[in-house]
Amino acid sequence: MNALIILAHGSRRQESNLEIKCLANEVKKISKDEYNLIDYAYLELVEPTLLQSIDNNINVGISDITVLPYFLSSGNHIARDIPAMIETATEKYPECKFKVSACIGMIENMPKLILEQARFG
Amino acid sequence: MNALIILAHGSRRQESNLEIKCLANEVKKISKDEYNLIDYAYLELVEPTLLQSIDNNINVGISDITVLPYFLSSGNHIARDIPAMIETATEKYPECKFKVSACIGMIENMPKLILEQARFG
Repeated sequence: MNALIILAHGSRRQESNLEIKCLANEVKKISKDEYNLIDYAYLELVEPTLLQSIDNNINVGISDITVLPYFLSSGNHIARDIPAMIETATEKYPECKFKVSACIGMIENMPKLILEQARFG
Repeated sequence: MNALIILAHGSRRQESNLEIKCLANEVKKISKDEYNLIDYAYLELVEPTLLQSIDNNINVGISDITVLPYFLSSGNHIARDIPAMIETATEKYPECKFKVSACIGMIENMPKLILEQARFG
């Protein structure tokens, strides 16, 4: 069974954290049967952390996890912190397959999306 | 004449700031004649600030400015800081038309984009 974990930074502002939970629900609605589970986690400040979310996923039988960093910029979190967490998870769960996708800011058509959002937003 | 200012948070990591400059260039390439100027600015940590960018725009004859907040979450920066800056700019340049679009995280098809990025990223 496979899972997608949307990984956000985490905020002191509770509404921002709830936005991620809602976003995961929206993704769930349109994902059909591509994933058995759509989950979310936060890198800092708020739980579930990525490792907690991975624990939860493993506990329900997931063995293939894709992490989508919901970040605009590929900074230190992407370059250093997330790989370190995935290394820890891989050591803990060697049978599980882990993949980290490029962050959401790296989507190919971002310039077009910016123009559209500026026009109608 | 009109301008689009892509407003990012600003980072201590210089590469992340350069990403915004590159992004503005990419937007410029595809924007055709929708804007006379595509510019960028940072909310914190690095220059040009939004107000500096607005000054520069006004100095070259821009009188219609759209600000696109390049943020995923509509936190305090969006709710409080950016409106306060726009108020200051409006007082300084009452002849200029200012518009702030919804932040990039609010794009309608974000759940679909997340699935696509997770698949191929």
